[in-house]
This record gives sequence, C-alpha cells and structure tokens, in this order.
Amino acid sequence: MLAVFGHTNPDTDAIASALVYARLLTRQGVPAQAYRLGELNFETPFVLREAGVEAPPRLPELEAGTPVALVDHNESAQSAPNLAELTVTRVVDHHKLGDLTTAQPAYLRFEPLGCTSTILLKLHREANLPVERVDARLMLSAILSDTLHFRSPTTTAEDREAVAFLAPIAGVEDVEAYALAMFAAKSDLGDTPAETLLKMDYKVFPFGDPAQLQRWGIGVIETTNPGYVLGRQAELLAAMDQARAEDGLNGILLSVVDILHETNVTLVLSATEEKVLREAFGAEVENGRADLGHRISRKKQIVPTLETYFAPEA
Amino acid sequence: MLAVFGHTNPDTDAIASALVYARLLTRQGVPAQAYRLGELNFETPFVLREAGVEAPPRLPELEAGTPVALVDHNESAQSAPNLAELTVTRVVDHHKLGDLTTAQPAYLRFEPLGCTSTILLKLHREANLPVERVDARLMLSAILSDTLHFRSPTTTAEDREAVAFLAPIAGVEDVEAYALAMFAAKSDLGDTPAETLLKMDYKVFPFGDPAQLQRWGIGVIETTNPGYVLGRQAELLAAMDQARAEDGLNGILLSVVDILHETNVTLVLSATEEKVLREAFGAEVENGRADLGHRISRKKQIVPTLETYFAPEA
Repeated sequence: MLAVFGHTNPDTDAIASALVYARLLTRQGVPAQAYRLGELNFETPFVLREAGVEAPPRLPELEAGTPVALVDHNESAQSAPNLAELTVTRVVDHHKLGDLTTAQPAYLRFEPLGCTSTILLKLHREANLPVERVDARLMLSAILSDTLHFRSPTTTAEDREAVAFLAPIAGVEDVEAYALAMFAAKSDLGDTPAETLLKMDYKVFPFGDPAQLQRWGIGVIETTNPGYVLGRQAELLAAMDQARAEDGLNGILLSVVDILHETNVTLVLSATEEKVLREAFGAEVENGRADLGHRISRKKQIVPTLETYFAPEA
Repeated sequence: MLAVFGHTNPDTDAIASALVYARLLTRQGVPAQAYRLGELNFETPFVLREAGVEAPPRLPELEAGTPVALVDHNESAQSAPNLAELTVTRVVDHHKLGDLTTAQPAYLRFEPLGCTSTILLKLHREANLPVERVDARLMLSAILSDTLHFRSPTTTAEDREAVAFLAPIAGVEDVEAYALAMFAAKSDLGDTPAETLLKMDYKVFPFGDPAQLQRWGIGVIETTNPGYVLGRQAELLAAMDQARAEDGLNGILLSVVDILHETNVTLVLSATEEKVLREAFGAEVENGRADLGHRISRKKQIVPTLETYFAPEA
C-alpha cells in the first residue's frame, strides 16, 4: 500500500491533494492511502465537512524502504522525518525543486501552477477518468485556498479554468460565497495558543551556500481579520522567539496576510530579521512590524527574494 | 528562446528528445531551440539521415540566467558545465532524480519508462497535437535505441505501445529490420580511437556519503559485434586509466554489451574495480574481464547495485 502525504503543518491543499491522489491512484490500480503530517488548520475541517469526508489519519512511523508518494511538497525539511529511508516513487507538486532525490526512476509531476490540486485535475483528465463529486469539492477548495480565490500572484489561467470546471461537479453554485465561508472558517481563531497560530502554516527553508547554510522559519497567517491577529503581537513574538531557539534557526518571520485587502504585515522578532527585511525587501519597520505591501505569496514573493539575498556571490 | 538539450556524450535519445521537445514547445507557443552537448555516436547520424533532419548545433556558452529545458538527464555532472547559473524551467526525463534543484517552480515530467521519447509522445497526445512524421521517426528510433528493441529490462508496456503507435506515422514498415540497421550503424566503429569509444556513452555517477563521495565513470558500448571491441581491450584499458586519472575518479568501468545476445562483459582496470565488481555483482573476473551476465542496463542493473554497495551504513 502506497502512503500518500503532503507537508508538515498541512494546509487545505496538502490534505485535499493527499486524499484525491490516493483515490486516483487506487482507481488506476495502485492501492494508496492518504495520511497527514500534523494537525489540521482551521480551514480544512470546514472543507472536509462540506465534502463529507474524514480527515486522513496521522502518518505512522514507516519502515525503511516503504514506498511513498509526496504531494504539495518535496523538501525533506517539510516531509516525513525519516524520508531519506523511504522510497519515493511519486511526487505531484507545484513548488520549486529542493533537495529531493530518488534511488530509482520515479513519477514526478511538477508544474508552476497555483495549486497541486490543479495538477491532480489534469491527471484525471489525461487518464480519461471522470471526476467524482467528493474529489471535485476537495480540489476546488484547495485551489481557492492556495490562490486566495485567485488573489495570489501564484494564480494561473489553469487554476481559474480548473475551478470553473470543478464547481458544477462539486455542486458549488456560488464560488465567491463558498470561498468567503472558507476564509471565515480559517479566520475564526478563537483562543488558539500563539504557538499554534505561528506553526499553523509554517515552513523552514534553507538559504545560501550549503557550507554556511541559513535556516529560516517562515509562518503565514492568512486571515480576513488581521486586527485580531496583530492584537496578539506580544504573544506571537514570544512564540517566535521560542521557536527560533528550539529549532536552531538563523531567523524567523511571521506574515499576517489580509486576504481581502491583499496586504502583508510581518512581525519582526529582532535586529537580525529587521536587517534582512529592510535590505531584502526594502520594508519599512515600525513597532515590531514590517510592511511588506502586497507581497501575499510566501512561495512567489517572500522565499525567492530571500534566496537571492542569501545566495553566495558569484 | 528556450535552449533544450540532453546529456553530455549524447546518445540517440538525448539528441532525438531535444529535437522533438524543442519542436513540441515551439508548436505550443514556447519558442525553443535544440542543442547537443558533445559529438554524436555512430547510431545517431543514421537516425537523423533516415528522419531527414540535421543534427542540432553544439550548445554555446549560455549567459547566467538563460532559461533551459533538460531532456534525458537531470544530474549536473551530465549537463551543461555552468548549469548552476542557468534557469531550469523544464525537465523531461526517465532517470532517477539526482542533484537537480530549481530556483522557481518549474515543469518537471519524470516517468520510469524505457525512454524519454515515450514521455514526449504522451505530451503530444495530452496536448491533442498530431505527431508529425519527422518527430515520429525520431521518437521511434530513440525508443528502439534506449530499449535495445525491447531487450533491456528498462522496457515497459508503454514503450512497446509507443513504437506500435509511431511506426505507421514514421513510415517504418518493418520495425525489426529498422532496429537491426540502427544497431549495425552503431556497431560500425571502424578505426575510432579507444578514447572516443570509451566516452561515447559514458556518464560519471556520485555514490555514497556526500562527505566521502565516490565518483565513478561508467561507459557502455552496445554493439552487435562485441568481438571487435574486446579485441581492442589493451587500448581501451589504457584509455580508461587515463580517464580515471584526468577526471579524478575513484573508479572506472567499461561495459561491452552484446545487443543481440543480451550479455555484458565489463573491462577491469585495476584491483579497485575488481574488488567492487566481485563484491557488488558477484562477478567472475578473468583476464581483465568481468562477466556481468545479462545485466545490460546501466540505469537499472549497474548503477542501483553500486548505489547500494556504496550507501553509508544505516
């Protein structure tokens, strides 16, 4: 049985793509089971409820050599802790290619689209397999989530076409209203501890020369209610300070993204982060907050800038 | 203009796939030009003549940041010398994933099939683009070449189906006869210098712990006339000795593969190679030759065994 999973700190795409890809492979004669690598965020339970499916179980510890399929990620830092011992036979992803290697030729399908689920829809169509209602709802939700309903600069024409194709199959009449309900669910953070908020959509990235590697943690909170999140700035900075020390990071950032106004205010922990935010992004920093303007995509607008900033000089 | 190229020491698939993929991308609105990374082997000119196309030009030195598409390879050791400075936007390959990374999300299409051209045929069909006669001849030839007309254990059902689909479009009535003519052209080595024979289908592979990396050169001569090649053993061993020293390799192997009888006799340069051949493959070694039996696929039967042999102990 092939184990299919998305990245740690799973978002809706990581969960939906694992479920959909496992079902697709099983229909194609490759028995597969979806798993998750961590707790769900606040948006995904809403999506699963709407789709009428259970959350995938947590990934158990897998024996060395177990075949696995990765969705929505490929870097070892974002994957199963013992990934190096597992046998990666398939990857479907829309991120840049990181430190992944395979011991044998494998199925890799990477496209620079807004969402892994958009690629999964293409796989259905290429295989001439009809899209089932549950899968349509999961893929539609993942695309709306990853692209912030087409607001993110990662959005492509294929993502828009995928949503238009999927909506009638998924039984979603008003896509706008559905997306807003999803974002409202995501923003209903209640009294969630600051450490949980920080790590909800959080990834560690290596930057620069391997010999002098910089490891930065970058969290994002996408919300329709940024005032609530920024009101907890002191708590969040304390959580960031702890995470930076615990994970032995060179720096840590937490971006509060206002989904509806498409703006990014990033919390600034210390002089280290302030220097990088000023130099790499030309950001204004005041009262422990950096204004990153309309940079709402970590993948497309934050990480590449840091890549360039930390790149060894030629 | 996107530059498309296969690996150094190009074989028929590396050349054919570059030509076909560049034409496909251009038809899809992405202007592309095919290049080669080295001299043609003895089989490819026959194929190009049959297809009625010119060999692609040699890759010029590309400026940093130039967008490139890789076909039939992904490891930097087999690619353009300044690959790290180029922008890889697309890869189509059937090898295991090596040290490739991308700075941005890219199109990656890897499948564990017998030939890159089999994947390229799928790309035509997925795009609903009719296959042109020239492309059909190139892809057909590459598949027959890479799979040794289905003799190699790398052959899959999809490779066989691709040849059956392509033959009528390519105007090849007797596939068996065409493959034999291709292999005869490949085996007509004349008075080619031993250094050229060694490097004709030759790749350097890194093995083992990155901190104590082993780098091995592995050449293959696929021929219908192994007697001729083995008759030049002394010259070939001298060329191997020189190559090992010049490239600073830990070891070097040259496999003489009898296409029609599907056997592999590998030349043994020194006690280092002898030890590895005995221990990793359990091979009999006599008179400077190791009998590797029916292991005729470097990718599937030589490299993985060495990977395992040199892997750091868990």
